[in-house]
Amino acid sequence: MHRGGKLEVRSTVPVRDADDLSLAYTPGVARVCTAIADQPDLVNEYTWVANLVAVVSDGTAVLGLGDIGPAAAMPVMEGKALLFKQFANVDAVPVCLDCTDVDALVETVVRLAPSFGGINLEDISAPRCFEVEDRLRGLLSIPVFHDDQHGTAIVVLAALRNAARLTGRTLGDLRAVVAGAGASGVAVTRILVNAGIGDIAVSDSKGMIYEGREGLNPYKEALARDTNRGGFTGSTEEALAGADVFIGLSGSTLSEAAVASMARDSIVFALSNPTPEIHPEIARRHARVVATGRSDFPNQINNVLAFPGVFRGALDVRASTITENMKVAAAEALAAVVGDEISEDYVIPSPFNERVAPAVVAAVSAQARLDGVARR
Amino acid sequence: MHRGGKLEVRSTVPVRDADDLSLAYTPGVARVCTAIADQPDLVNEYTWVANLVAVVSDGTAVLGLGDIGPAAAMPVMEGKALLFKQFANVDAVPVCLDCTDVDALVETVVRLAPSFGGINLEDISAPRCFEVEDRLRGLLSIPVFHDDQHGTAIVVLAALRNAARLTGRTLGDLRAVVAGAGASGVAVTRILVNAGIGDIAVSDSKGMIYEGREGLNPYKEALARDTNRGGFTGSTEEALAGADVFIGLSGSTLSEAAVASMARDSIVFALSNPTPEIHPEIARRHARVVATGRSDFPNQINNVLAFPGVFRGALDVRASTITENMKVAAAEALAAVVGDEISEDYVIPSPFNERVAPAVVAAVSAQARLDGVARR
Repeated sequence: MHRGGKLEVRSTVPVRDADDLSLAYTPGVARVCTAIADQPDLVNEYTWVANLVAVVSDGTAVLGLGDIGPAAAMPVMEGKALLFKQFANVDAVPVCLDCTDVDALVETVVRLAPSFGGINLEDISAPRCFEVEDRLRGLLSIPVFHDDQHGTAIVVLAALRNAARLTGRTLGDLRAVVAGAGASGVAVTRILVNAGIGDIAVSDSKGMIYEGREGLNPYKEALARDTNRGGFTGSTEEALAGADVFIGLSGSTLSEAAVASMARDSIVFALSNPTPEIHPEIARRHARVVATGRSDFPNQINNVLAFPGVFRGALDVRASTITENMKVAAAEALAAVVGDEISEDYVIPSPFNERVAPAVVAAVSAQARLDGVARR
Repeated sequence: MHRGGKLEVRSTVPVRDADDLSLAYTPGVARVCTAIADQPDLVNEYTWVANLVAVVSDGTAVLGLGDIGPAAAMPVMEGKALLFKQFANVDAVPVCLDCTDVDALVETVVRLAPSFGGINLEDISAPRCFEVEDRLRGLLSIPVFHDDQHGTAIVVLAALRNAARLTGRTLGDLRAVVAGAGASGVAVTRILVNAGIGDIAVSDSKGMIYEGREGLNPYKEALARDTNRGGFTGSTEEALAGADVFIGLSGSTLSEAAVASMARDSIVFALSNPTPEIHPEIARRHARVVATGRSDFPNQINNVLAFPGVFRGALDVRASTITENMKVAAAEALAAVVGDEISEDYVIPSPFNERVAPAVVAAVSAQARLDGVARR
């Protein structure tokens, strides 16, 4: 399946003879160039840029494989591009960069930006990924979206809303523990805080993150300020006793005893791939709702539920950015697809549910207009 | 034809269900990534990189339009990508960069290089284009080819070989005057010197280029050393008196009287686009062979005769670079396509002649092996 790669570039116009050639290329193309030079917005009308996303990675945090470099990251970025096309008819080009310095990454993407209508950052290790995204969002007036952060956050929020609904609770009723303070852990925590979760605490490899813990990077310091009202300072499993929600995003493991110690109707999202923090069938002995990142168990938390529709929705209205509201709107639309069919084994739709992408697209476009970032 | 752009990215593998998804993307793709991380050459087997060319421009010298910037250059780069696909099944992605500094251009392309199997530089103004290409050739072990230089040079050499043959001469018998010392003027002159032209002199907007002329940039100084054995110091038209060949690459104009002053059986390549230096029908009153860059007159000198096959030939054998010999081999193969059908109105084949690309591909691949730059 991967031999020769998974993508090709194709022409959407015919070039059968000299007349076609002189229209598609020189001299005919000169009129189009001149029009864009005179009125820069026309680049969105007369080139493929408005439908084109760069899938940008430096290959430092690829799947569970870590820092394997830009060339070895390419098969993942091709897969991502393929999914953009398949699920939302967004053209996407993998851009694997041979640099890892934050300044260099930012500078390079800024230089590339005229060629693209959006930037999907992918598999860039934390904490560099936060600064790269923040700076690019400030510098560019096209959508910049680090999917490992926000794609995951959107799908987790959608699934958690439905899991809460199923068990007769709201997000505000829930106390959650997030294992992992990398890209996805930070973003999931942020979106849940913004969405009004009751309480949430985050752990990294050294245990729970709390204000005053030694050696926190600025991103974890900010997390410490905004989370952990319970003041947990020990291990993840200690914090889990009596908690409603576990969200694993770290590649760590979770014992059956820890799940058993959680509150009634607990919710376990064991999202590490390919090996969940705990086998879902074991977690299910104690938890009411269990989700994983895998397609061979119920409730797959898969970014492909979010990123194609998020970009399609943003590109359709030429959004200058993707706001927090747009992400939340995407999550709500995604959750709503489940509707009355909700059950313990169905809190999030399948990636192949054909209602998913249109629902996300519509919600994101509408919210972009409400937020005043739509340009058409 | 240009509305919405002229390109799309498509998947070459099906993703119909969760099984396909888990093969094309995570978790299946991890095996492919690991294999490439362990054995970097496998990126050429298991990604599209080995068939992918970046069409890189900074938008500073686009067609005859000049410095219109990266966005306005995009329609041309899309056209180029379309032709790569159409004529040689090379996938190509336009990369229009928002930087014009030589260091920045070189640095950016080096960072992008892991994503591509070749770099086609396009519409970068002289003299920066020379340094950008030279430095990239030194830094990268994939083909780097500035088409405005070498594509034009290859096709001019092919056409001139045939024009000489038609009139019973060899290149060594010819004295040529080139009007224009930009990218194409310099490269055409270089390839003709290397191919053994009898004498050649070059002019720019200030007249003939000769050793000791004030204010020459280093590239023109080098040209001055290697050309103009006749010691012409005046205007282009003065140098043309008695010359065998005129090659216009400057957007200047050429008078009928100047053509009339040339030697018997003269050859006029009036290649400025869209307006040739002299109308070909007027030139034809005095010259034996006339070529232009236009499709609506005989003998169209069109880069599309060269660049698709040159890259196809280089990529097929994973050439680490494109040597001078490979360019000359491409020109000879291209000239040979004309064969016995040669006439005043047919010294170069049509871009739609289906024998062109295969002939160029075969010649370039074979020469890459002879030059020891093929890697398979």
